[in-house]
Amino acid sequence: MAENILVIGGGPAGLHAAIELAELGVNVSLVERDTFFGGNPKKFKYKYLFPDLQPADNVIGELIKRAESNNNIKKYLSANIESFKEDGKKFNAVIKSSAGSETKTFDSVIVATGFEHFDPAKDSKYSYQLFDDVIDIKDLERMMGEGNFTRPSNGKPPKNVAIILCVGSRDRHVGNQYCSRVCCTVSVKQAIELREHFPETEVYIFYMDIRTYGFYEDLYWKAMEEHDVQIVKGRVAEITSGPDNTVICKGEDTLLRGPFEIPFDMVVLASGMEGGPQSPEMADKLGIELDEHGFLKQANITLSPFKSNKDGIFLAGACTGPKAIADAIVEGGAAAMNAYIYAKKNS
Amino acid sequence: MAENILVIGGGPAGLHAAIELAELGVNVSLVERDTFFGGNPKKFKYKYLFPDLQPADNVIGELIKRAESNNNIKKYLSANIESFKEDGKKFNAVIKSSAGSETKTFDSVIVATGFEHFDPAKDSKYSYQLFDDVIDIKDLERMMGEGNFTRPSNGKPPKNVAIILCVGSRDRHVGNQYCSRVCCTVSVKQAIELREHFPETEVYIFYMDIRTYGFYEDLYWKAMEEHDVQIVKGRVAEITSGPDNTVICKGEDTLLRGPFEIPFDMVVLASGMEGGPQSPEMADKLGIELDEHGFLKQANITLSPFKSNKDGIFLAGACTGPKAIADAIVEGGAAAMNAYIYAKKNS
Repeated sequence: MAENILVIGGGPAGLHAAIELAELGVNVSLVERDTFFGGNPKKFKYKYLFPDLQPADNVIGELIKRAESNNNIKKYLSANIESFKEDGKKFNAVIKSSAGSETKTFDSVIVATGFEHFDPAKDSKYSYQLFDDVIDIKDLERMMGEGNFTRPSNGKPPKNVAIILCVGSRDRHVGNQYCSRVCCTVSVKQAIELREHFPETEVYIFYMDIRTYGFYEDLYWKAMEEHDVQIVKGRVAEITSGPDNTVICKGEDTLLRGPFEIPFDMVVLASGMEGGPQSPEMADKLGIELDEHGFLKQANITLSPFKSNKDGIFLAGACTGPKAIADAIVEGGAAAMNAYIYAKKNS
Repeated sequence: MAENILVIGGGPAGLHAAIELAELGVNVSLVERDTFFGGNPKKFKYKYLFPDLQPADNVIGELIKRAESNNNIKKYLSANIESFKEDGKKFNAVIKSSAGSETKTFDSVIVATGFEHFDPAKDSKYSYQLFDDVIDIKDLERMMGEGNFTRPSNGKPPKNVAIILCVGSRDRHVGNQYCSRVCCTVSVKQAIELREHFPETEVYIFYMDIRTYGFYEDLYWKAMEEHDVQIVKGRVAEITSGPDNTVICKGEDTLLRGPFEIPFDMVVLASGMEGGPQSPEMADKLGIELDEHGFLKQANITLSPFKSNKDGIFLAGACTGPKAIADAIVEGGAAAMNAYIYAKKNS
């Protein structure tokens, strides 16, 4: 008899896990709270992925297509886990969706509930939502995805753009001491895209540390050398309105050791990643733990990052911390392997 | 009939992949060129792992123990792949070890051949091997592992220690433009350990960017706030001999915008990771590709980083690029899942 495995969350990690398990003949129930699969990359219409600038649809669209065409995956959209309880080595869950409530028994569970983009309106110094031309990393991604890549205030190409890193990250003031890991590389990628679209537009990046780790570094050199992106070490302390419908970034250049006050046509806030409202709810319902940053806690950070603290419940993707789509997909595979082994042993 | 899968490399990624496959009843052949399993962490006796400072043996020792006690894994030590060829959807390999040569047919293959530590002697400005008290990241790790944590020149505790980041990384001069990804976090961890062992010892870190990405950031704050580690933005340009048996680090503090010339009792070079001599050999024998940095090339960086460019041959761990042990283990799981699916389909 085929194993039954529950996958909660239909973003990159959950989709990949579901597809791999289905290919082994497992009966997968894939539960997504949204009305579509693909997670935040789909929701915010990411266009090109770092580091190779391949179309996001090559990855996200491909995963959705494979999941949708696989009959071993029962898909639940606009759905959530209404109740959940252990029954010996198995798990009973009530899945509620627009089609009604369904009670099922599972051999193992994968939680892949993802993350939320930090809301920059939470930090008033950035004047997000106050000025039309102050947008954030996901707004810019969506605008690029929609091919609508101009100043929100007047629809014209910007003469200069500031990208501000670490918005909502590495900042105890907003409660997030951790680094969101991907914003530097996404921002460097976006800077290159801006320069390619508008060769006349100057692009500045204000940073604390440029964390284009590993091979992402190639993109950083490319931004500086081939696209003349101006990279300034300094944290922006305030954004105010300036003359001629501009927005002014004030701060200190920590390398030149002096203040700056520059009017920009457009400001992009590289807001980070947070655990999101679904994680505490999942932790509560499934009886698993949260870590001190509000993400789901891994059994052992190094030996078994794909395990929760509860046998038979596995974790994958950004629900355990900020990470790139590639890492989420890899974790989906590792969690699927473990969920399958657990199910085989106990079914 | 059980599937037959070849795993090349017995470090963290290969061990984890082998164990997971063996738990599904697969006949695994685990081939390691060294005389022991555990890869570089075992070879250089890593003591504590970042970010939670758990004993390395909790992870590496545990993986070795599980692999050694599993009868579904045939272990080959001091071994290599003498020849390899495709046979339809299967692969024929000759495994040569101290026990002789053995010809076997496999349904799929996982390559987990790991990395080499960059040899800092390749860059003369660091005076590695010239001065006893200039050591590198793996030397310090081994010394800590052996409980021998003093100046090599005289066996006494150092009064001050410099840790220099990006040795052999982010440096076109030595041929490695990429970032080695883990050295910052390892170094911050080592700085904390130094301060704990020798509270009287001053510890300086010279850096370009502190890349303690994600939750590794916690360790960076801890080093600064709880352990008074001095973190200086500036690249060391030269190491020379100083008075009283010291070594002098010369460079420029890019934040204070001035030169420094400080005598230290001990210097630790945070040398990075390279693809290693086994990767080109593997690429050649298995008919897979290398990337421009000398690591094994992934089929698709985001969608399938655990696949090589050849069907049925999968990749895991640092053979595809610098990464943390946790990431190597996760990739071992993802590659195992794929190798298993491929084997099931074709056996």
